[in-house]
Parts: sequence; C-alpha cells; structure tokens
Amino acid sequence: MAPNGIPRASTRVAIVGAGPAGLLLGQLLTVAGIDNVIIEQRSPAYVLGRIRAGILECGTVEALARAGVAARLHEEGLVHHGIELSFDGARHRIDFHALIGRDVTVYGQTEVTRDLMAARAASGMPSVYEAAGVSLHDFDGARPQVRYRKDGAWHVLDCDVIAGCDGFHGVSRASVPGAARRIFEREYPFGWLGVLSETPPVADELVYASHPQGFALCSMRSKTRSRYYVQVPSTEQAANWSDARFWDTLRSRLDPATAQALVTGPSIEKSIAPLRSFVCEPMRFGRLFLAGDAAHIVPPTGAKGLNLAASDVVTLADALIARYAHGDAHELDLYSERCLRRVWKAERFSWWMTSLLHSFPGADDFARRIQRAELDYLVSSKAACRSLAENYVGLPH
Amino acid sequence: MAPNGIPRASTRVAIVGAGPAGLLLGQLLTVAGIDNVIIEQRSPAYVLGRIRAGILECGTVEALARAGVAARLHEEGLVHHGIELSFDGARHRIDFHALIGRDVTVYGQTEVTRDLMAARAASGMPSVYEAAGVSLHDFDGARPQVRYRKDGAWHVLDCDVIAGCDGFHGVSRASVPGAARRIFEREYPFGWLGVLSETPPVADELVYASHPQGFALCSMRSKTRSRYYVQVPSTEQAANWSDARFWDTLRSRLDPATAQALVTGPSIEKSIAPLRSFVCEPMRFGRLFLAGDAAHIVPPTGAKGLNLAASDVVTLADALIARYAHGDAHELDLYSERCLRRVWKAERFSWWMTSLLHSFPGADDFARRIQRAELDYLVSSKAACRSLAENYVGLPH
Repeated sequence: MAPNGIPRASTRVAIVGAGPAGLLLGQLLTVAGIDNVIIEQRSPAYVLGRIRAGILECGTVEALARAGVAARLHEEGLVHHGIELSFDGARHRIDFHALIGRDVTVYGQTEVTRDLMAARAASGMPSVYEAAGVSLHDFDGARPQVRYRKDGAWHVLDCDVIAGCDGFHGVSRASVPGAARRIFEREYPFGWLGVLSETPPVADELVYASHPQGFALCSMRSKTRSRYYVQVPSTEQAANWSDARFWDTLRSRLDPATAQALVTGPSIEKSIAPLRSFVCEPMRFGRLFLAGDAAHIVPPTGAKGLNLAASDVVTLADALIARYAHGDAHELDLYSERCLRRVWKAERFSWWMTSLLHSFPGADDFARRIQRAELDYLVSSKAACRSLAENYVGLPH
Repeated sequence: MAPNGIPRASTRVAIVGAGPAGLLLGQLLTVAGIDNVIIEQRSPAYVLGRIRAGILECGTVEALARAGVAARLHEEGLVHHGIELSFDGARHRIDFHALIGRDVTVYGQTEVTRDLMAARAASGMPSVYEAAGVSLHDFDGARPQVRYRKDGAWHVLDCDVIAGCDGFHGVSRASVPGAARRIFEREYPFGWLGVLSETPPVADELVYASHPQGFALCSMRSKTRSRYYVQVPSTEQAANWSDARFWDTLRSRLDPATAQALVTGPSIEKSIAPLRSFVCEPMRFGRLFLAGDAAHIVPPTGAKGLNLAASDVVTLADALIARYAHGDAHELDLYSERCLRRVWKAERFSWWMTSLLHSFPGADDFARRIQRAELDYLVSSKAACRSLAENYVGLPH
C-alpha cells in the first residue's frame, strides 16, 4: 500500500492495451525475461469479439513464432501464394510466390489474439482486464505511472516505460499534449460493409474487385468460413442491408465467373468499417512509446494494420531488450524514426491500393480512366506486379 | 481546275500538320510508296522555332531510322542510361540500363523536325506550308477533302483518308462534332518556366528534383546547351523572371551538390508551358485519323509527348500500308483502340510522375507525406525503379 492508501505496484514495462499489439509485446518481453504488466479496459471476451483482419506477413508470422505462439497458426493458417484482381469482367492473378518467392498467411486476428492470450495466461505475467479510468502520468520524467480503477479500487503502477498499445481510441495517444504531436489524416468518403458467413470461400485466394459501382473483396477466415466486403458510402448503416441485398450487390461487382461461383448463406456478422489513413508523429514521447493503431491507422485494402502493429512491437521489444539486457538505450532513441519510415511506406501502399480499387464519388472522367489504365498497366507489367507483391507481403525490416 | 474554278488535286493520304508527327507519317508512307500531301498553316521557320522536348524512346529512334532520318541522331544524340532523382538534399540514380537493359536518347525535337524536313524535301513529295483557312470535309463519307487558301487562292485536296497531325490547337479535332467525341482532361495548377542556355549541363543525365517549394528539372540539348525548368504557378508570367531570379530559384530546389555544380549563363529562350493532361476518344472518325497532340496531351514530366506521337504515327502508317499495300482495312479499324491503350498508359505514367514530383498548392500534410514516402520507397525498391524505367524508356508496343 502506498502512503495515501492506494495499492502500488511496479514493473519495467507497463503495456496499455491487450489487443494483439499489447499481447505480442508482452510475450516478446516475457520470453526475454523483462518484467511487464498489461492493463486493458475491456474484458477478454470483448477483445476476442472484435472481428478484424486476417492476412499475416512473413515478418508477423516470424514475430508470433518468436513469441512462442505460432503452433496453431502453422497448423491451421492458410498459406496464400498470391491474390487476384477482378475488373472489366475478368480475373487476373498476381503470383507473389513466383514474383518474389514470398507468401502471406490467412489466419484471423481473433485467432492470433486467442493464442497470445493463452500464452500470456500460461506465462503467469500479470494482466489486468476491465481496468476503468486508465490514465498515464509523468512519462516525460524518469518514473512514469499508470493509474486505473479495478473492482472499485484505485491502483497505481510505477514503471520505467509505458507502451501505448491501446488502439486508435485509446488513452495513450490522447495523453500526449497536442503541441507535442503532429497528426496526418485522410478520411475516405466510403466504408466497407463486411459479412461473415459459414460458406466456402469463392476462390482459393483473396479476390480484390474494382467495379464502377464500387469495390468488393472476397476474403476468408478458413476453408469453410468466408469474409466478404462491399464498398458503401460512409453514411450507410448496416441495418439497411439484408443478406439478400448484400449478396446481390457483391455479385454485381464481381466478374461473371466469380459471381457465378459465389456460395451464399446467412450472415453471422455484418458491420460497416470506415476507411481512414492516420499517422501520429512522433511515436515516442519521453518514456511513452506508441505502437500499432494507437499511432497509425491504414485503410484495410492493403491488409497492413495488424502487420504494421506487429512490426512496431518487434522494433520496440528489441529496443527494450537492448536497454534492459545490454544497457544500450540508443535503440529506444531510434524507435520512432525507424517505425515511421516503415509506417509511411505502408500508409502509402494502403492509400494507393485504396485509390486504385475504389470508386470515388466526385471523381472526374479523367480520374476514372487513369484508374482503369493503372489496372491495365499493373496486370501487364511484371515490375508493377512485383512492386505490389513486395508491399503486400511486407517490405523488409 | 475543278468546274467551279478552284484548283483540285488528289492524294491517298492528306496529312494536316507538318510538325514531327505529320512529317514522320509522311516519310513512313513515302518510304512505303504511298502517295501523301502535307498541309501546314505555318511557315517552316515557325515550325522549327518551337522549342520542345528532347527525350526519345528506343521505339521513336527505330521509327526515325525506318523513316530514313536517323543518321545525325545516331551521331549527335546523347544516349542516357538513366535519370537522377533529387530530393531531401541528395541525388539518387535510376539506372535504366542496369534495370531493364534499355536507354533513351537526348536529341531535341527541333533537330528531329529539321531532319524530317530535309528528308521530305529530298523525297519530292508535296508539302504546302502557310496554308490558310484549312478545313476538313466529308471524312464521314467515302471521299474526304481538305480545303485551304494559298497565296490568295483556294485549293481543294481530295483524298482517301485525312491524318490529323496538327496538334492540340489544330483544326482536325475541332472538325469533329462534339457529340461524336469524348474529352478527358486535367489541368494542373502550375506550369514549367523553362530556360535554354549555352552552358554545360550540370549533370550527365537528367536530374528531376522534388522540393517543398516546387519541382525543378535539369535537362540538356547537347553537351554545351542546357535546358532547365522550375515549377511556377500557372498564373505566372515569364516577363517577371530575370535570369538571376531563375537561377536562384533553380539552385534553391536542388540538392547542395547539384546546386553547387550548376553553371549559369544568359538565357537564350525563356518561356512558360502550362501542364495539362488531355485525351480525345476515339482517335478515328470515319476517314479522319488523329495522331499525336491533336488527340492527346501529357504533362512533360514523363517525356512522353513526342514519343506518344511517334507511336501513333507508326501504328497509323502500318495500318495504311496494310490497307494500300495488302488491301487489308482491318488494321485501320483497330487504330483507335490500339493507340488509346498505349495513350492511357502513358497518360497514367505522366500524371503519376507529375503527382510524385510537383508541389501541389492546397495539398494537405498527409498528401505531402505520402509523396515523400513514395520517393523513399521508389529509390529503395528495385521493382519500383524497374516500373519507372520501363515506362520512361517506353512500354513495348
């Protein structure tokens, strides 16, 4: 008990947020013998209930292996050697493996989180779920604190550093004075209406469809569970979309062969996600380090969100290991700059894929022709396909 | 004399415009033994006085060789194996030759025109310069006509087909009813202020510079004659620019090493060119075929204007040869579609290079960072450099 009666604990790294970023960081630190505590506002069930991306870059798979949580992923994950582009009535394959000898793995973010949670529980390292009123203090000084209320009582966690892994709406970035950070942002005038269904995927790989009426994506979680999306105006409500309307719309945006092969079924989940590009600079404020969605958001088109979070986390874990295992603080000084170089490349790629494939309200005829010319060029050029491929599977660290 | 007293002549192909497109077409047809007449509103001296681009793709060099006018070009043209990008204080080379084994040739458009004019004169095929009041008739029927006034007298030229090679402001495209064509257009809020000077070029290859204050380009016509450009607002007047102001502005937009190496001197020519993207669809209207700037304009960033004209002309010449030498009219039917596929890829590339390198008034911080990230990615990726290279040297026909 602290003198004022508030229970006081201390750790080296206080991790705010128990999504995949926070959990992965915790695991990498734990494996390296570095003390850490995870503080999460929500319950485990809530965290697991969030439906998110499911495309893992090689680097992300490696990070999960290093964290000791890749067994099920290796068993159940679907290795995809490429993607397909559907436009003007035909499908064109981009063969990552043939182009650059690398692949991606389809494995739902929910499953990644589940595996990380199990490993966390097995490690015995402390996690505090349903922590209310989380606040960050003194991270510009030598001894930061995280305060929170749990089961009605206030707690103080003293630490060396705080890792802000609590996503776009979390308290970490919001705790930084506005004058200390610079925000770069782009909102897109559309969202993705997504449907999850217990139906076999229409194709072995993801099909990205560009159509005058809007973008569509045929994705999957497994060989029996599909995830489909259609572009909708950002003002649209999921409640306006019956299953029938969704399937009809999806079908109308696919090339005939894909449309005909589509197996439909009742939706398990249906929701609209807005599309946004967002970067906060820098990603370090004294002893507070932002990682993942807390620092940046990408539109989902390039499947970069989770992967970018994993790459931040690996960079941060390595810097913390350099600091605590080898007494070298220099890596921490480089954290923000190193991450941002990669972040901006991923932001560029995600913005580009979004611009390439979506229908933009208000786009003039010239812009539409340029979009079409870019698709034409892309599928006719090995260099252009290779550029897409190397970005999609993840640029080298 | 025609019954009504107007002198009447006839030919197979009436070529409207004696710029490089019209002259090259005339030469290719003449070599193939196909009768043609060139009608030009201006004088030879005026045509030669226009300062234009000077980067020739391999395909353009081949076309000029086929037309029998490549001797001086092979002797005096400078073969460039790559270009350089200057940004953030450093220069980065993109080595076309190493990347894709192809090059470009620097040889001024004025010189190309001069060589073509000499060949035309030597061939004895008729050219009418200073033809006033040129008008196109009945190209939607079987027997089109070109009418014009020369030395005060009206003339009628009957022909099988008309080749509209008279540039963006010419009468050919303007003769097509608005309902029959579709225009795609983009105006950029800036132009290029260009200076020609008798000074050695600052670098062996072209240097494309991206700077927060605006784009700059270090180009050349020969080893002793340089051509430099700086981005200026489209409202700017060349008269506001002293030589000193131009050189200071140029220097401020280059990396320090390039700026320091710059040799300045009095300007021989100073003018502002607007930047515009423009495409007319289709490129054929009955027996009228548009080629080059008459059908499309690109911003000069990708050095595509003259090359695209040459590629139209080769396609048209081949189609006319198929028609007149082999009685096959099918190639003429494919002309517009074939050209437009290539045109739109070049439009895309030119728009992309323009977007990548220029400073856009009103661009938000996100857009600026994306531009910077794209430059960063480009110089770090072989695939991206290869994509730029294959577009710059000219996509395969």
